[in-house]
Amino acid sequence: MKKLEEYVRSIPDFPEKGIIFRDVTSVLQDADGLHLAINEMDKCLEGIDYDVVVGPESRGFIFGVPIAYNNHKAFVPVRKKGKLPCETISCDYDLEYGKATIEMHKDSIKPGQKVVIIDDLIATGGTTEAIIKLVEELGGVVVKVVFLMELKGLKGREKLNGYDIDAVIQYEGN
Amino acid sequence: MKKLEEYVRSIPDFPEKGIIFRDVTSVLQDADGLHLAINEMDKCLEGIDYDVVVGPESRGFIFGVPIAYNNHKAFVPVRKKGKLPCETISCDYDLEYGKATIEMHKDSIKPGQKVVIIDDLIATGGTTEAIIKLVEELGGVVVKVVFLMELKGLKGREKLNGYDIDAVIQYEGN
Repeated sequence: MKKLEEYVRSIPDFPEKGIIFRDVTSVLQDADGLHLAINEMDKCLEGIDYDVVVGPESRGFIFGVPIAYNNHKAFVPVRKKGKLPCETISCDYDLEYGKATIEMHKDSIKPGQKVVIIDDLIATGGTTEAIIKLVEELGGVVVKVVFLMELKGLKGREKLNGYDIDAVIQYEGN
Repeated sequence: MKKLEEYVRSIPDFPEKGIIFRDVTSVLQDADGLHLAINEMDKCLEGIDYDVVVGPESRGFIFGVPIAYNNHKAFVPVRKKGKLPCETISCDYDLEYGKATIEMHKDSIKPGQKVVIIDDLIATGGTTEAIIKLVEELGGVVVKVVFLMELKGLKGREKLNGYDIDAVIQYEGN
């Protein structure tokens, strides 16, 4: 049986020179690859008690919603500025070049709810750090963070110290 | 039991005056609502023989991936210009104000593959028309299109004449 790692296509110099882009579309466009990816991420949640899956636009939606569905949990999207129609809270964070702002609906998480954050990739950890800030501002408790892939060379975990982090596939470099 | 329609929050004057925005985040952030939405969309695919689910960024990801997972199918994302790392084909289409461009990877669909398109909402049908064009350019055969919601007043179905279209929730107006 093909291993999950073998479904990931690596593309040199995308989106810019020197970056090896880890492409998940090659995982998804194979029915077995998609199944395996979701199942492996799901396994990281065994024994975890939680209420809500939170995932950021847009690759966090890809992995977060099937996991929420499979476990009969709620899904709360984190979106880029201006996309959510009701009252929001927002957080600015640094990208490699420039800044970004993400938002969540104010009523999306009830105080005390146990939250799992799902995304495709942890690089520097900046996006996840911003998501955790928003979830905690709403009174949610982050009980677990699961990624499909981790670029260990960028040391994103250091930014998320004290949280329970899992990544299914780990790449040594960046 | 609460009906699916009752989970959808309607927001007047978003994103601009005169538009009633049908918000799916209120469906998703309730575990029962999320489950019901996916199950009802899944039901529209009973008896349909297909290989691939295609869904556009980013709400098409939310509904398309769990449906692909549940039925052990592949998922192919349609993305905005510049987001896909490998060779793409693209299609321009008109929005209410201005234009947009969507892309698919050239190798994402094999000639002859049977495709189901999934999205949250059909309004004027412009996005779906563009997706169908791309799928057919790659040699795929569109066997079904399923939406969670339809704004009947905008007559999107007329643009998609000849295709098998289903929408779980129908709104008379726009």
